[in-house]
Amino acid sequence: MSERIRVGIVGYGNLGKGVRKALSRNDDFKLEAIFTRRDPARMAIDEGGIAAGAKFVPLSDVHDHAGAIEVMILCGGSAADLPEQGPALAALFNTVDSFDNHARIPVYFDRIDKVARGANTLSLVSAGWDPGLFSLNRLLSACLLPGGMSHTFWGKGVSQGHSDAIRKVEGVRDGIQYTIPLQEALERVRRGDNPHLTAAEKHRRLCFVVPEKDADLKMIESSIKKMPAYFADYETEVHFISAEELKREHGGMPHGGMVIGTGTTGEAGHRQRIEFGLNLESNPEFTGSVLVAYARAVHRLSGEGRKGALTVFDIPFAYLSPCPASWLRKELL
Amino acid sequence: MSERIRVGIVGYGNLGKGVRKALSRNDDFKLEAIFTRRDPARMAIDEGGIAAGAKFVPLSDVHDHAGAIEVMILCGGSAADLPEQGPALAALFNTVDSFDNHARIPVYFDRIDKVARGANTLSLVSAGWDPGLFSLNRLLSACLLPGGMSHTFWGKGVSQGHSDAIRKVEGVRDGIQYTIPLQEALERVRRGDNPHLTAAEKHRRLCFVVPEKDADLKMIESSIKKMPAYFADYETEVHFISAEELKREHGGMPHGGMVIGTGTTGEAGHRQRIEFGLNLESNPEFTGSVLVAYARAVHRLSGEGRKGALTVFDIPFAYLSPCPASWLRKELL
Repeated sequence: MSERIRVGIVGYGNLGKGVRKALSRNDDFKLEAIFTRRDPARMAIDEGGIAAGAKFVPLSDVHDHAGAIEVMILCGGSAADLPEQGPALAALFNTVDSFDNHARIPVYFDRIDKVARGANTLSLVSAGWDPGLFSLNRLLSACLLPGGMSHTFWGKGVSQGHSDAIRKVEGVRDGIQYTIPLQEALERVRRGDNPHLTAAEKHRRLCFVVPEKDADLKMIESSIKKMPAYFADYETEVHFISAEELKREHGGMPHGGMVIGTGTTGEAGHRQRIEFGLNLESNPEFTGSVLVAYARAVHRLSGEGRKGALTVFDIPFAYLSPCPASWLRKELL
Repeated sequence: MSERIRVGIVGYGNLGKGVRKALSRNDDFKLEAIFTRRDPARMAIDEGGIAAGAKFVPLSDVHDHAGAIEVMILCGGSAADLPEQGPALAALFNTVDSFDNHARIPVYFDRIDKVARGANTLSLVSAGWDPGLFSLNRLLSACLLPGGMSHTFWGKGVSQGHSDAIRKVEGVRDGIQYTIPLQEALERVRRGDNPHLTAAEKHRRLCFVVPEKDADLKMIESSIKKMPAYFADYETEVHFISAEELKREHGGMPHGGMVIGTGTTGEAGHRQRIEFGLNLESNPEFTGSVLVAYARAVHRLSGEGRKGALTVFDIPFAYLSPCPASWLRKELL
């Protein structure tokens, strides 16, 4: 086996942990360090055995590691962390991130591209599953079925943004929100009707809420259901449960969804359908696995002299694999 | 719009027709000629309006078109045509083919690679959906879920090989065979059991047979069900129908299938599932659409100086699209 790819993780929330776990299942990688804004000494203790071997380093010392780390995997959030960390770290390292603010991707991409070209580094932006694998399938459908449409459904899965919104409602102690595709919408799309559906016409929202003692449940339910953007346009269900039930039944971070591309071919208009679906018991662990595979691609492409910013659209799948091309052709083609 | 990509089609059976139809929906291509071993004058008449504008040329004159055609799309069969035509045409043109004899892909690839490198041409071998899109998803699962498995199901769809086998049985006038995934096997795979299943444990076979007048139906049914390799190991159903019903109900060439990748992540072994499925009313028209998108990629990569043989594993999805990368990032990522 050739030398292992030396990587670092920046940010050690759910996604950072998912990346660490993925690295432990891919033995062509060596995790050099986890960079954090928290107290490294404290974190190493908190994590104990499960992060065994990982070294925690203050993010402020990251400059000292330029050269020692071949690909930095950025696990911060898209709202506050990545817009700052992405360009700063692309000036020092090859990077992979999962920037997922769809509307801001073009601006973010251009900023990273400029920095990386100047620094002779390579950065893959917006990897993961959406943006990421779902984007690949939207693109595939657009290329194979011109004139058709692709439809993206999310869930069943936990939306952190909507769960946070619930928790801010007066009288709510804790809560979680599941986004669930509407079966009827799924079936219309699968039939090839190519309906124009809003997110609210494709999904319903299921909330489990732990109320404060003596809270006004009717008021909580009404506040949630009327919340603009988050719930008002959606078919929303609110269930009140105990803190124990929340912990026991809703402690995971499942997610998933589907991209369904439909269109026709030929003069007779034969209907063709392409479906890509994910069913994930752990969203951050799966996203972490995607980032690790793309880190492998970035390492190899960087070795071939590529620089600047890329997206998943620019990466051949062969680059995601540690196996030689001849083996892939023989076993998987 | 930049200049159109000049392409040719070699072989005008079902797949060749599918490619022609796909080209008519992608206006960045210009179909220069369809090369055939049959009498071109006769074909142009037979095809009449539906191949309007296409020029039929004897395959023996193909050498005269080197230089005028930028990508040749090979639509011959994998048993007899491509092993001969692939290398011969790769010496003259950039090519795309759908060579689908999985066991022989490595040898075929190496032969084409050698010829194409010598001739400064670029050839994409084994595009389509299996091999092709299904292969991409097998590779994706292998990269994202190391230690997991991927399972390929075919159907519901018409198997030409099995339909041909039925038609050779004594007393059979005509017939068609559908390959159908077994629901129970699908569900075991989806649960993440990672069962080791043979093709016969994953599929059943449904045959519609038009018997000759006064044929021994019991004998036909028994001959089909006992046929080694094709039917003997499978749950097989035989129905006798009239020639009219065969024509009316079974004239299409539907197909499809699924690749289901399952595996786990993390110390807790969270189950993760990746599914890719196709539901096609016309198999040759969809395969034709895939070949056309990959012809676009071959044209562009050839323009960048690539030569030799490639597979779908080597092609970034951005190359399948006629749209600029910035538009793809903005609209589809």
